[in-house]
Amino acid sequence: MTDDLHFAKPDYARQQRCGVPEVIYGAGKTAPQIVAIMRALNDAGQNAFATRVTPEQAAAVRAELSDAVYRAEARILTRDVNPLPPRTGKIAVLCAGTSDLPVAEEAAVTAERLGAAVERVYDVGVAGLHRLLSRVERFADARAIIVVAGMEGALPSVVGGLIDKPVIAVPTSVGYGASFNGLAALLGMLNTCAAGVTVVNIDNGFGAGVAAARINHGATAN
Amino acid sequence: MTDDLHFAKPDYARQQRCGVPEVIYGAGKTAPQIVAIMRALNDAGQNAFATRVTPEQAAAVRAELSDAVYRAEARILTRDVNPLPPRTGKIAVLCAGTSDLPVAEEAAVTAERLGAAVERVYDVGVAGLHRLLSRVERFADARAIIVVAGMEGALPSVVGGLIDKPVIAVPTSVGYGASFNGLAALLGMLNTCAAGVTVVNIDNGFGAGVAAARINHGATAN
Amino acid sequence: MTDDLHFAKPDYARQQRCGVPEVIYGAGKTAPQIVAIMRALNDAGQNAFATRVTPEQAAAVRAELSDAVYRAEARILTRDVNPLPPRTGKIAVLCAGTSDLPVAEEAAVTAERLGAAVERVYDVGVAGLHRLLSRVERFADARAIIVVAGMEGALPSVVGGLIDKPVIAVPTSVGYGASFNGLAALLGMLNTCAAGVTVVNIDNGFGAGVAAARINHGATAN
Amino acid sequence: MTDDLHFAKPDYARQQRCGVPEVIYGAGKTAPQIVAIMRALNDAGQNAFATRVTPEQAAAVRAELSDAVYRAEARILTRDVNPLPPRTGKIAVLCAGTSDLPVAEEAAVTAERLGAAVERVYDVGVAGLHRLLSRVERFADARAIIVVAGMEGALPSVVGGLIDKPVIAVPTSVGYGASFNGLAALLGMLNTCAAGVTVVNIDNGFGAGVAAARINHGATAN
Amino acid sequence: MTDDLHFAKPDYARQQRCGVPEVIYGAGKTAPQIVAIMRALNDAGQNAFATRVTPEQAAAVRAELSDAVYRAEARILTRDVNPLPPRTGKIAVLCAGTSDLPVAEEAAVTAERLGAAVERVYDVGVAGLHRLLSRVERFADARAIIVVAGMEGALPSVVGGLIDKPVIAVPTSVGYGASFNGLAALLGMLNTCAAGVTVVNIDNGFGAGVAAARINHGATAN
Amino acid sequence: MTDDLHFAKPDYARQQRCGVPEVIYGAGKTAPQIVAIMRALNDAGQNAFATRVTPEQAAAVRAELSDAVYRAEARILTRDVNPLPPRTGKIAVLCAGTSDLPVAEEAAVTAERLGAAVERVYDVGVAGLHRLLSRVERFADARAIIVVAGMEGALPSVVGGLIDKPVIAVPTSVGYGASFNGLAALLGMLNTCAAGVTVVNIDNGFGAGVAAARINHGATAN
Amino acid sequence: MTDDLHFAKPDYARQQRCGVPEVIYGAGKTAPQIVAIMRALNDAGQNAFATRVTPEQAAAVRAELSDAVYRAEARILTRDVNPLPPRTGKIAVLCAGTSDLPVAEEAAVTAERLGAAVERVYDVGVAGLHRLLSRVERFADARAIIVVAGMEGALPSVVGGLIDKPVIAVPTSVGYGASFNGLAALLGMLNTCAAGVTVVNIDNGFGAGVAAARINHGATAN
Amino acid sequence: MTDDLHFAKPDYARQQRCGVPEVIYGAGKTAPQIVAIMRALNDAGQNAFATRVTPEQAAAVRAELSDAVYRAEARILTRDVNPLPPRTGKIAVLCAGTSDLPVAEEAAVTAERLGAAVERVYDVGVAGLHRLLSRVERFADARAIIVVAGMEGALPSVVGGLIDKPVIAVPTSVGYGASFNGLAALLGMLNTCAAGVTVVNIDNGFGAGVAAARINHGATAN
Repeated sequence: MTDDLHFAKPDYARQQRCGVPEVIYGAGKTAPQIVAIMRALNDAGQNAFATRVTPEQAAAVRAELSDAVYRAEARILTRDVNPLPPRTGKIAVLCAGTSDLPVAEEAAVTAERLGAAVERVYDVGVAGLHRLLSRVERFADARAIIVVAGMEGALPSVVGGLIDKPVIAVPTSVGYGASFNGLAALLGMLNTCAAGVTVVNIDNGFGAGVAAARINHGATAN
Repeated sequence: MTDDLHFAKPDYARQQRCGVPEVIYGAGKTAPQIVAIMRALNDAGQNAFATRVTPEQAAAVRAELSDAVYRAEARILTRDVNPLPPRTGKIAVLCAGTSDLPVAEEAAVTAERLGAAVERVYDVGVAGLHRLLSRVERFADARAIIVVAGMEGALPSVVGGLIDKPVIAVPTSVGYGASFNGLAALLGMLNTCAAGVTVVNIDNGFGAGVAAARINHGATAN
Repeated sequence: MTDDLHFAKPDYARQQRCGVPEVIYGAGKTAPQIVAIMRALNDAGQNAFATRVTPEQAAAVRAELSDAVYRAEARILTRDVNPLPPRTGKIAVLCAGTSDLPVAEEAAVTAERLGAAVERVYDVGVAGLHRLLSRVERFADARAIIVVAGMEGALPSVVGGLIDKPVIAVPTSVGYGASFNGLAALLGMLNTCAAGVTVVNIDNGFGAGVAAARINHGATAN
Repeated sequence: MTDDLHFAKPDYARQQRCGVPEVIYGAGKTAPQIVAIMRALNDAGQNAFATRVTPEQAAAVRAELSDAVYRAEARILTRDVNPLPPRTGKIAVLCAGTSDLPVAEEAAVTAERLGAAVERVYDVGVAGLHRLLSRVERFADARAIIVVAGMEGALPSVVGGLIDKPVIAVPTSVGYGASFNGLAALLGMLNTCAAGVTVVNIDNGFGAGVAAARINHGATAN
Repeated sequence: MTDDLHFAKPDYARQQRCGVPEVIYGAGKTAPQIVAIMRALNDAGQNAFATRVTPEQAAAVRAELSDAVYRAEARILTRDVNPLPPRTGKIAVLCAGTSDLPVAEEAAVTAERLGAAVERVYDVGVAGLHRLLSRVERFADARAIIVVAGMEGALPSVVGGLIDKPVIAVPTSVGYGASFNGLAALLGMLNTCAAGVTVVNIDNGFGAGVAAARINHGATAN
Repeated sequence: MTDDLHFAKPDYARQQRCGVPEVIYGAGKTAPQIVAIMRALNDAGQNAFATRVTPEQAAAVRAELSDAVYRAEARILTRDVNPLPPRTGKIAVLCAGTSDLPVAEEAAVTAERLGAAVERVYDVGVAGLHRLLSRVERFADARAIIVVAGMEGALPSVVGGLIDKPVIAVPTSVGYGASFNGLAALLGMLNTCAAGVTVVNIDNGFGAGVAAARINHGATAN
Repeated sequence: MTDDLHFAKPDYARQQRCGVPEVIYGAGKTAPQIVAIMRALNDAGQNAFATRVTPEQAAAVRAELSDAVYRAEARILTRDVNPLPPRTGKIAVLCAGTSDLPVAEEAAVTAERLGAAVERVYDVGVAGLHRLLSRVERFADARAIIVVAGMEGALPSVVGGLIDKPVIAVPTSVGYGASFNGLAALLGMLNTCAAGVTVVNIDNGFGAGVAAARINHGATAN
Repeated sequence: MTDDLHFAKPDYARQQRCGVPEVIYGAGKTAPQIVAIMRALNDAGQNAFATRVTPEQAAAVRAELSDAVYRAEARILTRDVNPLPPRTGKIAVLCAGTSDLPVAEEAAVTAERLGAAVERVYDVGVAGLHRLLSRVERFADARAIIVVAGMEGALPSVVGGLIDKPVIAVPTSVGYGASFNGLAALLGMLNTCAAGVTVVNIDNGFGAGVAAARINHGATAN
């Protein structure tokens, strides 16, 4: 069990302390770096879980670690040495448009790996309300609802006003011009008129997935 | 007819050229200045129309010009020497919350003075969708729809997706913290996923009223 | 039961739909407006709950409604006609400095009114870590942890790394200069390196309290 | 008729509801994705209309769908299975400089497809006023005037002061330095001293075209 | 001659070095401070010149220094012990609206005190172009043209395209909402499409007056 | 003489009106577009002058127009059919660091083409004041001084305090991090404590050159 | 010794741990709150030190604690029960303009209380370089140099290039318009071209004083 | 000894004046430019030190100057003709995450070259406090502590509260979304609640290294 990879000190105890294992943020890392950290985690008896992995990075890692599994739509690469926890408790993941899909999938896969059953309700943006309203019963009973949206980021406000569950809003960088790479959606979500909505960083599907999983764990424990 | 009040050159020909008479922006003006411009306009045979007039300003002006009329909820003070145009064509004014009311009324009264019949649909924010959805028929047949909202400014997106009329969105400075005095609502409206929505400056009910009236005139003329 | 107060349409069904009764945002409202809405809610058989009420507003309202109760440190004014829900499930509220206290209290009182038992852990900012570390056991078993901080907003990152519960971060406008009225704290919290942290608007203790209560309800229900 | 393409749920009823058919935003989509959505729309008996399509994307799509038509200057790709509506009512499209042309053409082609006759008046920036003033009669009788400008975005103010028709201002990202990718033009247009001007997002020629078409439809209907 | 007033070190040699005498920035200074610096300058044989002086400050200073002269419209207070330079060479000062007048006057009076003959052309904003175009000959032969404008700040672009003289643009904080206290006008002016336009800080009429005077001196000297 | 190149309407009369010939902004234009405009200008008997031309663009244009002249350090490409004006009157161009050189050269070559004699004083940043102070006599007698600087943009303040001539400050995008692509330098220059300094857009060497040439012309004319 | 004042938990051990005693940030505190904390600190045998105290606050506190000492120019109120440390080692405090004086004094008095001998060099802004250059020997031998400046914030760059000591730059909110309450000065200082300069928050004289004192202690200890 | 390389004027006397030799900022420079400046410095008898050098630049320079030494992890290239100063006095360099390593190494190598002994304490971010707390004794006795962090930038606040030495905070551009390329970390550090912390520009490891070295020199000298 290697405590220090020179460029990284894996925090092997994080799972016990925080309920989330050490996660590899793939953006900007080289394939050999990802391989090394995955191996170190696996050698320590932990599952390896990398986010923001491009298809090119994934292919290069899998050339070394052929049993690593890549979920392209979620940009997630994993290599597990232990069984994942069973999926109990329902988390819903909604997204406004098809461009928001990678962030939504990152959230969904994260929540699944942390033991939630995930209901996906995609492409239900506010400019076509009927799509959302006809699907309310699919998410109304979830323990937490992750709502992913770019552009004006209005979907969480509408969802937060429809149901009484915790809503985690994820602004995405989808948009152009005065979206300022997701700033418009972020500000919209922070200023929501619907109480009970909280927000994570732009494009942070992983963070939303972890937050939802923590809520799910709490509900299971009680 | 005075062309030059030292501190202002009233543009008496504006009505003919632009379809809108010279309007007095009351904010920051002294009561004597408002009195003087109103008198000059009236002496030139034009109606006088002042926006952003506080109750205190209005009282001071009316001490001099007792026939001036103050609409407190719209913060508008007028003194007319000609009949207003008849109201033809329907413009709808929607607002999200009760705090948006002064801006909505400024838009509504402006449109009325410029010859539109105005349907007011207030307090229909997106966190309680049923209030909006149950009133769609009241605005679906308007020639233009002014939608006033603060905080996350999501209402125009929902309205623009429900009907096929021109939507003029007015962000308001209602909100706190990361609303940054209306910036969040403004950005939200500019990034709307609903096509056919255009936007005016923060709190600019007057500008929205004029734009709607111009649309209304065009429809009447054809 | 009045559906329309001219300046407001109380949403009497919100409690059933969203788990939160209609709440009065006191900032910028006149005392007579607050009195009218409180009376309308009470007449409809609902408790009345107003936030951001100044001592001056509270005194003026209580001159009319002598049985209204003011919690000065939380800036909350209430007038209840029904018993509040029993307090079950533990929510912790932490704050970094004494200036963050009003926002923390707004969150705490909101959560209590919505049925949570609240543990307050105040003045535990990161520049004196021992104060926080010696109190971990007081909040480690909460169902959700609200962390209120201004200036650099670092406390939620530290808390999120210590425990495995949902953390709701509330940036406050406490600070000066480059705090830009809470923007620095807001950005810090959104960029937290600790997964499982979600964020609400600057100074939005009420929103954090509702979000925590929704989590608490979910855990109680399961 | 496919309701769900996995990555997109075409909204086939949008035309009826909003007067605008479902439109494909080409930026960031792969050619196969564009091909699939176009085919789905065409199979459902609807015309297909894609914006922000690069020449490379267009060539790749046309290798599959040889009857798709590409308007390079507007970056628009279409594949129609129904006749377009006849062009009635006049919409004018003005632009300030030659670099604004792609956005202006996007607006113009959009308006044409939605049934407007379009008068183009290009390269009439405010630093050479004679070019604009000598062409006023070409746009003074339009039902709506789309004004496209980058840099300081001053053209809509001048146009709005010359005529009495609705003006839709489109800021472009043309400029450098303190233009901040179109922010300067956007702010300039929002702060216009000419009433009757409304604004869309930076580079949003499509949105302006739809808004103008909605105005045009209203005038035709009356 | 006092070199050090404890709170200020008057730079008596500035006039010789920079062509501009030491100037007192009145904003935020107490009347006694202004009195003391004026006396020190006068005792050193220099004229005293204070900007941004409110009527209240002026009255308080003049209670002590009854021969100080206040120009209320320019917010300038002076007490001269030497004759001012004769006015040679023409500087034009234009402004867009009546609210820009105090800044325009600050520029004009500054330029006059530094030896320029000033032509004032006020209230010639771009939304009523005829007012500007009919007055071109009044400023076309000036050595430098100061153009003061708030809101979208478009006037300098139009002026810079009409004539071939140096244009100094002064953005003002006039406006509301997305004017962000003059930022919109400032950005507009910096992004002008008219070459030959330079810009000073928001509301900085004094700086524009000095820059114009420097240009004027250079032309006189050659 | 072609008035309309489809993508551009050359303004052949600009030189007479504004003292500056029509200039081609090269950034983002294709080589064929530059070739066409240059030919049109030359055919109309005017010199052709293009800014922001990369070496690659220049080579491609020169493959067509072998007599076009490229000044790589200024990124300027010209093709003249008339003699340039003689150089009279002195303009100084200062820059703070070597990275500011392209912008400084753009300013210098522009001023030279418009008839000024240019004195270059480069690499005299404020962190090594002796380099500037030992060269004051080289620029103290110029009719205008262009000061180019990135990073904190402090050089114009120092220069403006040393001499009594008009100073035109050019912020550059040189820097990193909190320079925000030249914003820091721009704000610094706008807030200069030295009166007589005016500012142009970030990296706008051309605009500074034109403004200086206008000042120079005025001094020559008098 | 009171550990908990309900609204504050004084950190009595801070001095030992951090070298700085607990300091009271006076802004926004009531006089009774300041009195209570001062008494608690004094009762615990510690000196009491409050910053950002207005004359009105100071008078109210001194009505209770007549032996509290107020330094108006530094806005600092103290009540000491122990002798202050002897002043050893030299710290220089420079400021650019007279308006920067309160921040400079806050830094100077803070450093003195923490055991430094302070040399004040005030009103030496870069627009009059001779004032700075003639005083270099007064600060060249200091252990650290605090440089306070508003507006463009250029002074630290010049100082950092003249000497080889640590420079702590303090931007102030002095300025107007595009100074954006000190943002311009802050960005200028962060982008300094002089290495060895570090920066604190806008108007944070106290923080600069503490940082300088820590450097001074280190030099004394070695 | 060449004083002027056309594109650069090396400041050979800087070392004597400022304690730091002239340093080459590699970003954006061509390999031949770096070679020329290194040769000029070496010919003048000075060591050559270039920062922000990519592996590609380094290889190209070393093809010419085979004795240049490249420290890839610090992105620093050097070619020394004199012995470096002996390393005395301890400077600690901490960083929060592995992505901050290049900036931390730039700081560390800079400090070493300027005569400090450097203790590196890496990957000790606040979300895993035990990693930091278990290493306090490694940095508690340093003369200055450089703390490098991206994302929310909370580490300097925690460090500044633990020890009594000068802390130099370096925000990095590590992060995404609302990190805005390091702005969040920068603001967090400027608003630190721990006194004694000063800040340098985003990613400015070099500047931090110089500042720490200046502190170290001062402590050695006393």
